Amino acid sequence: MSGCVHELTTRDCWEMLRRLELGRLAYHRGDEVHIAPVNYAVAGDHIVFRTAHGSKLACIVDNGDVAFEVDETSDEAATSVVCRGEAVELTGEQALMVDQLRLRPWVRTVKSHVVAIRVEHLSGRSFELDRPWLHLRQD
Amino acid sequence: MSGCVHELTTRDCWEMLRRLELGRLAYHRGDEVHIAPVNYAVAGDHIVFRTAHGSKLACIVDNGDVAFEVDETSDEAATSVVCRGEAVELTGEQALMVDQLRLRPWVRTVKSHVVAIRVEHLSGRSFELDRPWLHLRQD
Repeated sequence: MSGCVHELTTRDCWEMLRRLELGRLAYHRGDEVHIAPVNYAVAGDHIVFRTAHGSKLACIVDNGDVAFEVDETSDEAATSVVCRGEAVELTGEQALMVDQLRLRPWVRTVKSHVVAIRVEHLSGRSFELDRPWLHLRQD
Repeated sequence: MSGCVHELTTRDCWEMLRRLELGRLAYHRGDEVHIAPVNYAVAGDHIVFRTAHGSKLACIVDNGDVAFEVDETSDEAATSVVCRGEAVELTGEQALMVDQLRLRPWVRTVKSHVVAIRVEHLSGRSFELDRPWLHLRQD
């Protein structure tokens, strides 16, 4: 691994997951791979998010193998945390408990289902940015 | 669809893809779904990125079915563009042509392979944010 890429510790990965609120979920839809942004929260070693009764939920119920990513970029570095795990729909008490989380809705659409990803594999990397062309940008 | 979610036109999706540089690639690794951030550029109806000779490349060569996502968030809205398509490794003249693109390396690691995703399905949504709790945040 080059000196300009740093592996994050597990603790730093969880810190970043807890701090951010928008991630991207990759999931199976039959033989296809799909991706969608989700507004999430962390509960223990789970990523939790709400979703509507729709095709994403049906896909996850059909095949719970998912991957999840968050990232952030500054002028100096791009940092990304990736996890993989099994997603399951929460019901009953477990779903109600989610109301206590910092799972704050960003949008007014009805999202009555709660999904939890049990994080089984977690890794993070920070890439020191080397963008010599940056001064050419006219933002 | 709720009034606070707007579908983007195809033209707006491409405009956003051309404007941004960091996206997330979802791909198959055997029976698993994986996700990784990638620094990309647009060429015609393709998403193009460089990658090292590693497991991501091997996975894509094995199964080119991929999904790709970009997003951006302001105080008022979160906008996301999602595409799906077939990824192939470019070689010879095609790979060399990529040097003319605005595919600017962010990191000094050696990434000698070029992958192009032919975008077959493209959609984008803008979510008007409704975060009544925002004033409670102490950033």
